[in-house]
Amino acid sequence: MKEEVFFGEGMVPVKKDYPDLYEAIVGLNEACYAGKVIDYRTQKLIALGINAAASDDRATKKQMMSAMKEFNISKDEIVDVLRVVLLTSGMPPFTKAMKILKELKE
Amino acid sequence: MKEEVFFGEGMVPVKKDYPDLYEAIVGLNEACYAGKVIDYRTQKLIALGINAAASDDRATKKQMMSAMKEFNISKDEIVDVLRVVLLTSGMPPFTKAMKILKELKE
Amino acid sequence: MKEEVFFGEGMVPVKKDYPDLYEAIVGLNEACYAGKVIDYRTQKLIALGINAAASDDRATKKQMMSAMKEFNISKDEIVDVLRVVLLTSGMPPFTKAMKILKELKE
Amino acid sequence: MKEEVFFGEGMVPVKKDYPDLYEAIVGLNEACYAGKVIDYRTQKLIALGINAAASDDRATKKQMMSAMKEFNISKDEIVDVLRVVLLTSGMPPFTKAMKILKELKE
Amino acid sequence: MKEEVFFGEGMVPVKKDYPDLYEAIVGLNEACYAGKVIDYRTQKLIALGINAAASDDRATKKQMMSAMKEFNISKDEIVDVLRVVLLTSGMPPFTKAMKILKELKE
Amino acid sequence: MKEEVFFGEGMVPVKKDYPDLYEAIVGLNEACYAGKVIDYRTQKLIALGINAAASDDRATKKQMMSAMKEFNISKDEIVDVLRVVLLTSGMPPFTKAMKILKELKE
Repeated sequence: MKEEVFFGEGMVPVKKDYPDLYEAIVGLNEACYAGKVIDYRTQKLIALGINAAASDDRATKKQMMSAMKEFNISKDEIVDVLRVVLLTSGMPPFTKAMKILKELKE
Repeated sequence: MKEEVFFGEGMVPVKKDYPDLYEAIVGLNEACYAGKVIDYRTQKLIALGINAAASDDRATKKQMMSAMKEFNISKDEIVDVLRVVLLTSGMPPFTKAMKILKELKE
Repeated sequence: MKEEVFFGEGMVPVKKDYPDLYEAIVGLNEACYAGKVIDYRTQKLIALGINAAASDDRATKKQMMSAMKEFNISKDEIVDVLRVVLLTSGMPPFTKAMKILKELKE
Repeated sequence: MKEEVFFGEGMVPVKKDYPDLYEAIVGLNEACYAGKVIDYRTQKLIALGINAAASDDRATKKQMMSAMKEFNISKDEIVDVLRVVLLTSGMPPFTKAMKILKELKE
Repeated sequence: MKEEVFFGEGMVPVKKDYPDLYEAIVGLNEACYAGKVIDYRTQKLIALGINAAASDDRATKKQMMSAMKEFNISKDEIVDVLRVVLLTSGMPPFTKAMKILKELKE
Repeated sequence: MKEEVFFGEGMVPVKKDYPDLYEAIVGLNEACYAGKVIDYRTQKLIALGINAAASDDRATKKQMMSAMKEFNISKDEIVDVLRVVLLTSGMPPFTKAMKILKELKE
């Protein structure tokens, strides 16, 4: 699955016009999501936490969609990640991510 | 364990001089680490990822020490978290966290 | 007023589905806005400065609306906050916040 | 050209209502883009890199448009800047900026 | 006082070797701290909040020292600023700033 | 030169214990610094600007040392980068970087 992962719209021109860069990114993605001990699913939850903590709407939304589609990650699991976001990063990134989650579930 | 968690040096004067604030923080900490589905140990890994991604040496070091002491989280597990940090947040926070980990293991 | 404060859309599902978390947030909000020496109004101006400095459109807009509605905070006062944002955080967060302010006043 | 640079919508009310602040900003802008050794064009590329690394859509888009219009900066040059963003700041700011670039070129 | 404000060690070579830049910074500093409605003292509290929220030890420490020396800002006032930092930006920047404050008071 | 580039202390255990990750990082580094149009030297200046804007002392210092040693980048060139940091990111990252530069030159 990891190889086929959809990198998003911004990667389309990279693949087409900058194949050297594309290949390096695929290699990095492979190596980063090839945890020795922590499984891919948990790594995706960590990535979701980092994106939400950084208040990045676009990355947060993409991670949530991918989490729910590819891994059947539940709403409660995502909220458990966002609890950590609240503690480490404050209310604005937390409420922003909760709003994105709410809209995705509707 | 969660109640007894050591908040660090900065919390000592909060507990002593600002009990209302201290209580609210304890309540928040409790609620944030009381995941419904994701266990406390995994939530700590997520917190570590967020702190490292934010390039925060002090918080990263404290999370790593707490992870290793309280939860027997291994070096490989921490590196699996840092793989996600590398992908989402770039080389500087990754190498900074790897350096902290190296120093803690020595 | 503080108890009734509108936390925004993201908090609706928190209140409904995660009452433990909701209560902890209300407790935190109370304790944080219960300054011993600095009044609530000034604390809101500080929150506005922090949100604008973090280049967070959504939080900045919400803080500005709340500032104008709940506290009759004037445009000039908000600009005085944004002056500090400019000095501490540079042009992009400053012009972004000025644009939000302009749109709210129109 | 620097004097006539378009600061964006947020600067319109600054010029009109806060002339003291406007003048200080013009002075700062002049001094910052008056590199002794690095030319203005290269400084704009650096500004683009910083804005993209900060995941700031609005500032990134404005810098890209200004880069292409005022300086005939090519798509390949912008991608060379974004390569550095990827290495220093990770995938989310890189793909966000690549998407903005793609939309601007279409 | 504003003109004589001590900008810190990093400004010494700017004043000496880059007078154009130095003058622009002085002009910016003047304009930013010349609030129309909010007084200089309150603007300094806002700057402290922004620096602490950004987890910047050095800037936070300098703002706290300047706040206490130049304006007789009390420990309780600084804690009231840090309450807002906790709510908007989470535990790590809050505990870091509380630790700096504790060390300054000792 | 790029292949031999010194990644810093944090990379030592990566090379030794996580060769898959190390290789992916080398690949990424190669691809990112292989600009089509912008030369390696200018890309390093952009990286320096991004690190300084992120207020990352450790990365800023390493970039400055590498800039001066590997590329004979002068103090004036670095200051020209920091001018852009000041404009885009405010006084605290600028003065922090100027202080690092001053200490390196002494």
